[in-house]
Amino acid sequence: MDIPKSHPRYKSLLNREKIVEALDRGILAKAGLIAHGRGETFDYLIGERTTDIALRAIKTAAAILVLAENPVISVNGNTVALAREEIVKLAEELNGKIEVNLFYRSEERLRKIKEFFEENPVIREKIKSGRIKILGIEDANKQIPNLESARGRVSQEGIYSADVILVPLEDGDRTEALVKMGKKVISIDLNPLSRTAQQSTVTIVDELTRCLPLLRKYVRDYKNLDREELQRIVKEFDNKENLKNMLNHICNRLKNLQST
Amino acid sequence: MDIPKSHPRYKSLLNREKIVEALDRGILAKAGLIAHGRGETFDYLIGERTTDIALRAIKTAAAILVLAENPVISVNGNTVALAREEIVKLAEELNGKIEVNLFYRSEERLRKIKEFFEENPVIREKIKSGRIKILGIEDANKQIPNLESARGRVSQEGIYSADVILVPLEDGDRTEALVKMGKKVISIDLNPLSRTAQQSTVTIVDELTRCLPLLRKYVRDYKNLDREELQRIVKEFDNKENLKNMLNHICNRLKNLQST
Repeated sequence: MDIPKSHPRYKSLLNREKIVEALDRGILAKAGLIAHGRGETFDYLIGERTTDIALRAIKTAAAILVLAENPVISVNGNTVALAREEIVKLAEELNGKIEVNLFYRSEERLRKIKEFFEENPVIREKIKSGRIKILGIEDANKQIPNLESARGRVSQEGIYSADVILVPLEDGDRTEALVKMGKKVISIDLNPLSRTAQQSTVTIVDELTRCLPLLRKYVRDYKNLDREELQRIVKEFDNKENLKNMLNHICNRLKNLQST
Repeated sequence: MDIPKSHPRYKSLLNREKIVEALDRGILAKAGLIAHGRGETFDYLIGERTTDIALRAIKTAAAILVLAENPVISVNGNTVALAREEIVKLAEELNGKIEVNLFYRSEERLRKIKEFFEENPVIREKIKSGRIKILGIEDANKQIPNLESARGRVSQEGIYSADVILVPLEDGDRTEALVKMGKKVISIDLNPLSRTAQQSTVTIVDELTRCLPLLRKYVRDYKNLDREELQRIVKEFDNKENLKNMLNHICNRLKNLQST
């Protein structure tokens, strides 16, 4: 389907197309389509734009990523479907580590996600040269403690040894298990009430493809700041407060929408 | 997948299974899965129960259906996937008319939906005996004015001549077009802000499989009331006010959830 760029919901419809295509390609489980729909509602309630509240979380996340010794970006089918290129660009600004971790783990989907990264010639070149590492496929031989599902299977070089993990588009008990391991978790989650959102060190309540370029911009900018300055940014941020502000924002939106 | 009945979200997970199965069977378009996810978020925000606010809308809808001279239930893929039996039971309490009307109309999906009704032997028998009529498949030769899409194609015996139309699970401009034709539209829609919700005569903001048995119960009960009493129930209901109450309910839920 050709969506005209002038359509008021152009980006939302484009994302929907990407998600449907990813299902057809076997990158996404069917449950991933339903999860995408859940996110659409939250984005609609938020107003389909990056709020100042989300921007503060993005800046804090950037500071944490720059301060990190060994960060890793954890990706699932939805994330790869929507933002393959942007994830790679962000990883390049860091240490290049991307780890595939699936709720419905299957060898076939893992393989298809790997192929999806590699079919882009620019990304393939970066993987070949070692600037980008796609972990968690052949090397998922460690186990996150207190997490029984197949999702607990992680790479030693990636999530298992990481100090900071960026987790886009996920709900469940993995974030809590990672935090219990002493890791810092940055999540990107449109639902401010999800377990992931509530348990994360920093929760970015924003749509993935909208916030990733901003996160990358701040990572690049913040490399010029000294550690004390970055630590100050992190210290001044209160995730619980930020989530509360987001819920208030949604309430205000609901009230404004009903009066129009 | 076997979901234990004790699971706190048993019904929600069961519905999700039904939706995935309907996609596999060709009853549902992929966009139907995303739409289901959007509904899940609203139901979660509402609290996954029938509120008193929704109950008032259900009672009013029942009164309108009992007063109707020629009502019809309009169904799409999602509705049939989730509530085939309940839709038939409700139609039996009325004049037996069900009309299939699809956003993504295709002959194949129409045929598969018809087969899905008929594969249930009890329903097949009712169709055979004429107690239930599945309209809109071979007889969609009328056009709703001011609605260009294939969704405007309707049956003379069904939507075109109906005075009251029950529209579950739909968003779009069809409701407005039907209201402009002078029809009363009762919608079942988890999103109180959707165009359908905003344009309907009565909007039931509740989950489909939860509210249909209630709607049927009140239709049965209200057959014992006289017309004046039923008209009083309809007159006392204010849809705009009801939608506003629902948005306030969601806001309060958001604030309560954040403090737990």
